[in-house]
Amino acid sequence: MKNILKDLNKAFENKVRLGIMSALTVNDQLDFTALRELLDVTDGNLASHLKYLERENFVEYRKEFLDRKPNTRYSITPSGKEAFVKHIEAIEKLLK
Amino acid sequence: MKNILKDLNKAFENKVRLGIMSALTVNDQLDFTALRELLDVTDGNLASHLKYLERENFVEYRKEFLDRKPNTRYSITPSGKEAFVKHIEAIEKLLK
Repeated sequence: MKNILKDLNKAFENKVRLGIMSALTVNDQLDFTALRELLDVTDGNLASHLKYLERENFVEYRKEFLDRKPNTRYSITPSGKEAFVKHIEAIEKLLK
Repeated sequence: MKNILKDLNKAFENKVRLGIMSALTVNDQLDFTALRELLDVTDGNLASHLKYLERENFVEYRKEFLDRKPNTRYSITPSGKEAFVKHIEAIEKLLK
C-alpha cells in the first residue's frame, strides 16, 4: 500500500465544500437559503465556497424568479459528481 | 436536517491528518518511515501534522532503539479513536 492519499481531492478537504457536495448529491438541487441552513454558515462563507466549486466546474446554478423574487438554485455537475464519488471512495478505501 | 457539519472535526479536514488517523486506525502502530511511505509526504510535512495530532492528544508515540537505531512508533490514543470514529460517522451521515 503506497500513497493512500492520492485519490483524495483537495477541493473537498474543506468541510463546507464537503457539505455542499454531499447536500447536492443527496438533493438534486437546493437554493442558497436551503444550503445555508443545512450547513449553518454565513452568506459570505457559503458564497465563497460555492464560487470555488463553480470555478472547478463541480457545481452550477440557475437563476429564476419565484413570486418576482430572485432565486438561485444550485446543483452538482456531471464532473462534480464523478470527482466527488472518487473522493468518497478514496476515504472509504483509507479505512480498509 | 440542520447544521449537518457540526460533527465534522476540524482536526481531520486536512488530508494528511485524515491519512494518519486512518492508517493508525487500520494498523495498531506504525513508525515514522512507514507513515511517510503510506502517505507519500515529506518528513517536515508529516512531522508537523503528527505534532498537531499529538497536541490534540489524538496520537501518541514511543521511542525505542532497534539495532541501536532510534525508532519512533506512533499509535492512536483512545480519545483520538473516539474523535475519529465520530468524524467518519459524520461523513457517512452527510451522504444519507
